[in-house]
Amino acid sequence: MQNFTSIDDVGDPMSLAHRALAIKKQPFKNNRLGENRVLGMVFFNASLRTRMSTTRAAYNLGMKVITLNVTSDSWQLELEDGAVMDQGKAEHIKDAIPVMSSYCDVLAVRAFPTLKDKEKDYKEEVLSAFLKHSRCPLINLESATLHPLQSLADLATIESYKMVERPRVVLTWAPHVSPLPQSVANSFAQWMNHTDYDFTITHPKGLELSEQFVSGANVEFSQEKALQNADFVYVKNWSSYEDYGKVIAAPDWIMNKKKLERTNQAKLMHCLPVRRNVVIADDALDSDHSIIYEQAENRLCSAQAVLESLLKDQD
Amino acid sequence: MQNFTSIDDVGDPMSLAHRALAIKKQPFKNNRLGENRVLGMVFFNASLRTRMSTTRAAYNLGMKVITLNVTSDSWQLELEDGAVMDQGKAEHIKDAIPVMSSYCDVLAVRAFPTLKDKEKDYKEEVLSAFLKHSRCPLINLESATLHPLQSLADLATIESYKMVERPRVVLTWAPHVSPLPQSVANSFAQWMNHTDYDFTITHPKGLELSEQFVSGANVEFSQEKALQNADFVYVKNWSSYEDYGKVIAAPDWIMNKKKLERTNQAKLMHCLPVRRNVVIADDALDSDHSIIYEQAENRLCSAQAVLESLLKDQD
Amino acid sequence: MQNFTSIDDVGDPMSLAHRALAIKKQPFKNNRLGENRVLGMVFFNASLRTRMSTTRAAYNLGMKVITLNVTSDSWQLELEDGAVMDQGKAEHIKDAIPVMSSYCDVLAVRAFPTLKDKEKDYKEEVLSAFLKHSRCPLINLESATLHPLQSLADLATIESYKMVERPRVVLTWAPHVSPLPQSVANSFAQWMNHTDYDFTITHPKGLELSEQFVSGANVEFSQEKALQNADFVYVKNWSSYEDYGKVIAAPDWIMNKKKLERTNQAKLMHCLPVRRNVVIADDALDSDHSIIYEQAENRLCSAQAVLESLLKDQD
Repeated sequence: MQNFTSIDDVGDPMSLAHRALAIKKQPFKNNRLGENRVLGMVFFNASLRTRMSTTRAAYNLGMKVITLNVTSDSWQLELEDGAVMDQGKAEHIKDAIPVMSSYCDVLAVRAFPTLKDKEKDYKEEVLSAFLKHSRCPLINLESATLHPLQSLADLATIESYKMVERPRVVLTWAPHVSPLPQSVANSFAQWMNHTDYDFTITHPKGLELSEQFVSGANVEFSQEKALQNADFVYVKNWSSYEDYGKVIAAPDWIMNKKKLERTNQAKLMHCLPVRRNVVIADDALDSDHSIIYEQAENRLCSAQAVLESLLKDQD
Repeated sequence: MQNFTSIDDVGDPMSLAHRALAIKKQPFKNNRLGENRVLGMVFFNASLRTRMSTTRAAYNLGMKVITLNVTSDSWQLELEDGAVMDQGKAEHIKDAIPVMSSYCDVLAVRAFPTLKDKEKDYKEEVLSAFLKHSRCPLINLESATLHPLQSLADLATIESYKMVERPRVVLTWAPHVSPLPQSVANSFAQWMNHTDYDFTITHPKGLELSEQFVSGANVEFSQEKALQNADFVYVKNWSSYEDYGKVIAAPDWIMNKKKLERTNQAKLMHCLPVRRNVVIADDALDSDHSIIYEQAENRLCSAQAVLESLLKDQD
Repeated sequence: MQNFTSIDDVGDPMSLAHRALAIKKQPFKNNRLGENRVLGMVFFNASLRTRMSTTRAAYNLGMKVITLNVTSDSWQLELEDGAVMDQGKAEHIKDAIPVMSSYCDVLAVRAFPTLKDKEKDYKEEVLSAFLKHSRCPLINLESATLHPLQSLADLATIESYKMVERPRVVLTWAPHVSPLPQSVANSFAQWMNHTDYDFTITHPKGLELSEQFVSGANVEFSQEKALQNADFVYVKNWSSYEDYGKVIAAPDWIMNKKKLERTNQAKLMHCLPVRRNVVIADDALDSDHSIIYEQAENRLCSAQAVLESLLKDQD
């Protein structure tokens, strides 16, 4: 693996998920693989799970870590090619990236979408610049449109909990108060489409995701129907792709225990952070259905599987 | 030791202080004890000594460290149980803690009091949530009411400087311009009450500390009387516990060289940061009485003794 | 070497530059030299290259790193001796430094000038306090008047690219929209004056640098003349030293490809960050003249040479 920016960089997603689960059992087996190697983590946005789990993953492989919060630690970066940089931005991203990558062996970047300019977001302005200018392998820590580290952890989680060969997995939209990216949903759909699970997406009309990522997935506009016989219920809000970035109110779509009880004893998943009693009710989050902490824990072994693979292919 | 959140977690405080002093002489003796182990440090508030000394302590034991400034690196955390999270806070603390602790082997947290809501502060809203939800051992890096890492360093410092078996130790309130927590004073009183030192607290009336922590200590309202024959003078401001969070003006209570000269050549202590010429005058801080830098330096070996003990009991 | 705060701390600058280039070829040769040692990095200002390259340099030597962003992680520091600290600043720098240095084996500090108070800046208020109060060796990560880590990398870069024994090196001022320190230019002049290169500084009248640092260098007010036969063109803006901190507009001084073509196929250098099309035009930065990324990359081996030297002399 040369980079990990989307599922397209992964030869065999299912095998990578199983590699992650194997690493979870023996996390220190390769704890000298990353000796003398440094992971650089560049954050344009806030992060808790991604920051901590990826750092820990690097440590477990014997790597060292440099973390840069771009906005507060460093300079505002210009993105526009050819800009006359006489405003607030002190450095062009095309100059910052080759420099940062010359100090690191692997570079990882988090850059959320604007949710205002669909075209810029969906051409992955920041991630593309990193791909173009980085001199070392790149990890996507959540970009404008995708969050593949999350999806890998999601796949590993489902694999470790599934009771049947071909579980019914439902991704359901849920309400939220502010505009959220489509990245987790886009990415999850992409990864699910690579499995032979029975996969369905459910959301109110007007919240269709980009065909680029979900194409091929079954879409059902009735949440009730979608949840029938579900083995896994993945809850996630996203803002509108069509009416780009719009928050659509549909409070009835909140996930709760009553809805889960009508499934096939489904496991409840969410990538976190979750706004309790807005996206998912306490009675569901605190029920036996919930595997959200195990899912979050699997971010660690998943990141470790990715780093391990990048390091091995650098040798 | 399972956690280090207050003196109640410590079997034998005096023995731990002497362990710290032994570590100070041989800081790298156990520099592989923490191999493959990670300390997660979670800051809700600013920190210099605690941040740096605890990090260094972890390094000396071969641990790695992940530091999270909650407010700037991550999400605002909701503390209220059952909250409908439709406001500014993106994640509930009850969800963040199990996740963070699943990436770490020891979790450490700093969370100051509000100094507005006495009940919330004195039930240790944040620290209690960590204790309840953490899946790994916990260190208190200063909570709403206590600062045990500081107190352990204070005890070690007194032990290393005392000239008599049972020194006279005086904790004296001093003025300050803004409302400060009672935590250092509460905690110091607690630890002193566990020794057989001759321990006295002096402060203006109206600045009584919580009985919960200082109970048993001798209180003297005349600073002059209290300082007589003192071997150690520990200076610290705190805001009112009674009239909760109120700043009480009493500029005469500033510590200075003249006052120290009336003691038994007392050693001057302060936990730092100290506002010079408000809390303590330059002539005292820059005199031979002062052991404030040695006291601060002892934060390192104290934190190391705590981490060592937690790691050993995890095995 | 006891400290690295300016060229005056360095016995033989040219030999240190060549040591850096040797380290670049074998970066892990001394990767246990820094075992059990910790570098403390204290930032009063933003940093990208310095932060990342110095951290990586420490890692390559087996050191661990503690990074403190003073303003956001810790307390506001008082600089004034004898101040009555009843305003916003919670800790005096004279107390913070001995404490920080007691937790570290090497301390590094970045503190930019005010560009408002020439006297304070040129007496190096912050750096001097560190020199006075630190109990461990000190590295200057760019101070009010100097940036020696940059200059060392600059010298190493010129040494690795020069085609003749005594290259013609030109430092040319270039326009900028906001007031920038003189530190990079001061320091570069100092280091160049220690070589036997043919060194010239060119800038508009009124932008003379401090004699303290550039004394002895050839100054030419015509950029066109200065650039003739140049082998290296180092572009850098600085605000006025005379009319302290003033931004002087001279857009014609922008560096571009056309100007470079009139040189002796000169290599183009800049310390970065660079505002494109204000300081240097895209056509120059993106031409074969540019060695800005190699120059930035050399920050790593230069910092490593400095750390190595400090560690060896601590033994």
